[in-house]
Amino acid sequence: MDGNQGSGLVETADRFADDPAFAVHEGGKISVTPTRSIDSIADLALTYTPGVARVSSAIAAEPELAHRFTWAPRVVAVVSDGTAVLGLGNIGPVASLPVMEGKACLFKEFGGLDAVPIVLSSTDVDTIVETVAAIAPSFGGINLEDISAPRCFEIEARLRERLSIPVMHDDQHGTAIVVLAALRNAAKVVGRELGDLRVVVAGAGAAGVACTKILLGAGIGDISVADSQGVLHAGREGLTPTKQWLVENTNRSGYAGTMIGALEGADVYLGLSGGSVPESAIASMAPNCIVFSLANPTPEVAPEMAARYAAVVATGRSDLPNQINNVLAFPGIFRGAIDAGATAITEEMKLAAATAIADVVGDEVRADYVVPSPMDDRVARAVAAAVATCAREQGVIR
Amino acid sequence: MDGNQGSGLVETADRFADDPAFAVHEGGKISVTPTRSIDSIADLALTYTPGVARVSSAIAAEPELAHRFTWAPRVVAVVSDGTAVLGLGNIGPVASLPVMEGKACLFKEFGGLDAVPIVLSSTDVDTIVETVAAIAPSFGGINLEDISAPRCFEIEARLRERLSIPVMHDDQHGTAIVVLAALRNAAKVVGRELGDLRVVVAGAGAAGVACTKILLGAGIGDISVADSQGVLHAGREGLTPTKQWLVENTNRSGYAGTMIGALEGADVYLGLSGGSVPESAIASMAPNCIVFSLANPTPEVAPEMAARYAAVVATGRSDLPNQINNVLAFPGIFRGAIDAGATAITEEMKLAAATAIADVVGDEVRADYVVPSPMDDRVARAVAAAVATCAREQGVIR
Repeated sequence: MDGNQGSGLVETADRFADDPAFAVHEGGKISVTPTRSIDSIADLALTYTPGVARVSSAIAAEPELAHRFTWAPRVVAVVSDGTAVLGLGNIGPVASLPVMEGKACLFKEFGGLDAVPIVLSSTDVDTIVETVAAIAPSFGGINLEDISAPRCFEIEARLRERLSIPVMHDDQHGTAIVVLAALRNAAKVVGRELGDLRVVVAGAGAAGVACTKILLGAGIGDISVADSQGVLHAGREGLTPTKQWLVENTNRSGYAGTMIGALEGADVYLGLSGGSVPESAIASMAPNCIVFSLANPTPEVAPEMAARYAAVVATGRSDLPNQINNVLAFPGIFRGAIDAGATAITEEMKLAAATAIADVVGDEVRADYVVPSPMDDRVARAVAAAVATCAREQGVIR
Repeated sequence: MDGNQGSGLVETADRFADDPAFAVHEGGKISVTPTRSIDSIADLALTYTPGVARVSSAIAAEPELAHRFTWAPRVVAVVSDGTAVLGLGNIGPVASLPVMEGKACLFKEFGGLDAVPIVLSSTDVDTIVETVAAIAPSFGGINLEDISAPRCFEIEARLRERLSIPVMHDDQHGTAIVVLAALRNAAKVVGRELGDLRVVVAGAGAAGVACTKILLGAGIGDISVADSQGVLHAGREGLTPTKQWLVENTNRSGYAGTMIGALEGADVYLGLSGGSVPESAIASMAPNCIVFSLANPTPEVAPEMAARYAAVVATGRSDLPNQINNVLAFPGIFRGAIDAGATAITEEMKLAAATAIADVVGDEVRADYVVPSPMDDRVARAVAAAVATCAREQGVIR
């Protein structure tokens, strides 16, 4: 039988005809395909009953055979409740589907992995954890996506605890890994040691928290993190557990002012918050400063303005140099973890991924080339190899 | 990056090399494929950010657009907890995966629908219902599969109540629909009215219950149903709600003996129980009787023996005539329901599907051709059309 037919929703004068993004989404962006055709009763008897019973029996007797004779070990579930989708916010599960389908396309194109969007009708933490745990035998990895903070922290932590397959919230760690890769190379461009940089992180949501953690893990000691009420410090009250953790592990000088104030003399601005930063604040940063302004599509710092003060500027935009794009990280990370039979994605594996991304740029590094292009097909291979090696060295494998 | 690599599980002398079923399962039987390639930054900016945000925003404002611009409405989840897999019993979720992948292949090959195996780590009824309800926005239909009785009845009923997409437990209704189709044509072969036949159903599990219900719905009034303790009758105690329902709706003569005893003078034996039936019992049936012996791979009644007494014999085996194979039903049923935008699969839609299957055989009907071949590509089209028409006539559409 044929595939998609006209759905009746195609209007005579199609109001979506002018935007090629809608044409790309017509009928959805992914499909499930049998790996072998079924052209005869004999094929049917091997793919389905009675042949399939022999394979199922063998796996029942020896579960490890599922890694060879089923698709599940190489399938990543892209799980979202639609509460924090791109810059659009809480648009719900169904409206988030195009993003999750897009992610599935990227897993295949860049990582050679199958991926399936799983969008959820509930935003309750317990329900999400129980649901993902219940469906986990169907998959080889769980990519959590576009789940709002602070729920995303607890959901990821509990699922990592429950499951023995790789689980990663990409909005946290995918972003953090690419930011670290870019900052490693930006430090080279300005002739500084990574660990000596003073960093201001604007935003204490999913990405801000994960970026702070990975920068600390990479040896950067002087980091201030700001939320909408200013820099996090010991005098702030009523903080979530995650923000309390940030208070205890950042802001070594105990600065209690605004994010704008903290930028004075800082080496790095890392914008993950949206909104806008005045020119005077960027002008007050240290000479040869680094500006990563990642709000999309409108960066917090206008790139042309940033370029008047900063030695290196990066954004989330595909039409500007130095695009901080998660696609540099997640396909290779899951591919490497799955290739190694990893039971988790550790901090060390994330650091190894960041170094691998930075190293693809290598000696060609310059102010407008601190991260590879998202289309560079060396990246996922390099990341996968580094992550798999790290997993094996750590012994975090089944 | 390339797809599957050798997994390290391939042994030097491969103990699975002699069975082609294992070769067909190597690396799994399905994959997820992007419908359009991503060859440039421009492609990436349409499939993923920023282009995808325009599509997600449009769906958030107008949810009905998800039917046009996402894959979900045409994706069937094939959901199992692995408790009643083929004739293998409770082999667990991971060992059931090859069956669910096979089902996904058949959905695509015969119904043009995408399908995704979802196997569950829990066998608890509440957990299964909550899990499927939580992931339902990801899918356009739910095919429940290989879930043991009596839990399958409650799970299906509660999900039908909760969800406004088609939900069907195929072990019940797929089998029942094909049995009814075959029996319609078998009645023609022996020159009888369907409603006049006296039927003995051996087995009161998922398939036995559903077959009994659809045969009652098709107008057969005289049905006896037996479980392992004999024919269900009003004197039996401690019955499940489902068996109690059978007591109240079958066995009009109040017969309280064994299944073997009930066969005396019966027109139809419908075997769904496994085990074996003695030749004397088949010999005691009415002249020109009909024997459907569906245990697989070993029918309850040896087909050669059955042929000595019965005018029409059908089995579940692909190497014999008249194979009762669910693949004749489920791809077309879900395709028709989804094409029509059906919010449920009703009893009337199931009856329409059975008639459509029987009608494909049409005037060519004969004793060894009461159902079409599973490879007959007219079947799914005819079933889909009949089911969609029925859904529209009933108004069971969104």
